[in-house]
Amino acid sequence: MLTLALESSAKAASAAVFDDEKMLAFTIQNAGLTHSRTLLPMAEGLMRGLDMAPSRLDRVAVSRGPGSFTGLRIGMAEAKGLCWALDIPAVGVSTLEAMAWGGPVLDGQMLCCCMDARRGQVYNALFTVEGGKPVRLTPDRAISLPELESELIARQEPCILLGDGAALCYNTLDRSQVTLFMAPEPLRLQNARGVGLAAMGQPAVPAGELMPAYLRLSQAERERLAKLERE
Amino acid sequence: MLTLALESSAKAASAAVFDDEKMLAFTIQNAGLTHSRTLLPMAEGLMRGLDMAPSRLDRVAVSRGPGSFTGLRIGMAEAKGLCWALDIPAVGVSTLEAMAWGGPVLDGQMLCCCMDARRGQVYNALFTVEGGKPVRLTPDRAISLPELESELIARQEPCILLGDGAALCYNTLDRSQVTLFMAPEPLRLQNARGVGLAAMGQPAVPAGELMPAYLRLSQAERERLAKLERE
Repeated sequence: MLTLALESSAKAASAAVFDDEKMLAFTIQNAGLTHSRTLLPMAEGLMRGLDMAPSRLDRVAVSRGPGSFTGLRIGMAEAKGLCWALDIPAVGVSTLEAMAWGGPVLDGQMLCCCMDARRGQVYNALFTVEGGKPVRLTPDRAISLPELESELIARQEPCILLGDGAALCYNTLDRSQVTLFMAPEPLRLQNARGVGLAAMGQPAVPAGELMPAYLRLSQAERERLAKLERE
Repeated sequence: MLTLALESSAKAASAAVFDDEKMLAFTIQNAGLTHSRTLLPMAEGLMRGLDMAPSRLDRVAVSRGPGSFTGLRIGMAEAKGLCWALDIPAVGVSTLEAMAWGGPVLDGQMLCCCMDARRGQVYNALFTVEGGKPVRLTPDRAISLPELESELIARQEPCILLGDGAALCYNTLDRSQVTLFMAPEPLRLQNARGVGLAAMGQPAVPAGELMPAYLRLSQAERERLAKLERE
């Protein structure tokens, strides 16, 4: 089964092609160009390099969030467009789960995936590794740093930090009470390899049913609600 | 300084573009297609995706060996062609050093980079990590597994295995006497990211001076020498 995986939830954009669990090709770009210009040509380039027509694809996997609202919309829209044109289904993958699959996965490790959500919060989920695979300990959530700290202290396990919020957690959380490690740099951030791996065991759905999972209201929505409340 | 890094010393082919030490873009293909067809289009695709003309490049870095004789020749030939056309210099990087730079680099770690060289040997070099950077402990060499085992026992340090010979070493060397870890899979094999990082501190030379470092005679040369000896 041939899967195209797309990741555009943060600054970098990446694409990968998997034949079942084997990654045939992968590409990533982190030069600040907008995902709407780079992501689809990257996918096209991978398929051309593999000598494969896009019609060979069986499904498209994509990060559904949390992450940059604009980045997620670009990834989801391109996935939906491709799926519609090729008449294939899609798999929406949690960005935090993709991060865990792309990280260092040694049995017994606890993985703390965190993206900087601003305003003292991180988007976060915890995983443990069993049989070389991440197993979810918490749902995806927006959580304050003190709350996350209390939870990690209660769990009493050393913890590997992943994501663009890893440094924030490493520098903010009380390391006298929680043992923290930063994941090695090339494994730290979400990318299409993790998306493809995370999608492996998940059922595909009609692409029209894909929904982004922002976890929080956008700033525009928050401001509108505040305004309505004031009125 | 803009560097194009090329890696084709084994089964996968990869290319990366660096702006000084920042990796702007990276791509890898591991579908068994010949490097002579895939490597240059991969580099072109990266530059096009970055909206950069090849004339922007300041130098080309490439694995000079050890590795597959054919793979090395393709990489070196493409690097030389590009450098000649663009009138820029080249950096030839040890494949084993590239592997160390692309690996997990935590201070104090000992990295054992090894490629299966057949006939009971590995191409090998040892590195330690200081200040986040691999520092060489041995030259590149073709070494028998028993010799490597004795050396690692004498060093009395736990050791992280990298390269396509990692599993061979892990399964063959006496783990009751040496503590061995396999590097996490996506960091285990040489790739253009490691080539670019390893090239960072190295002086560029006129591309005509690049020479592959096979470390051993080719089978054809060995057979010819044996034949000459018999005559």
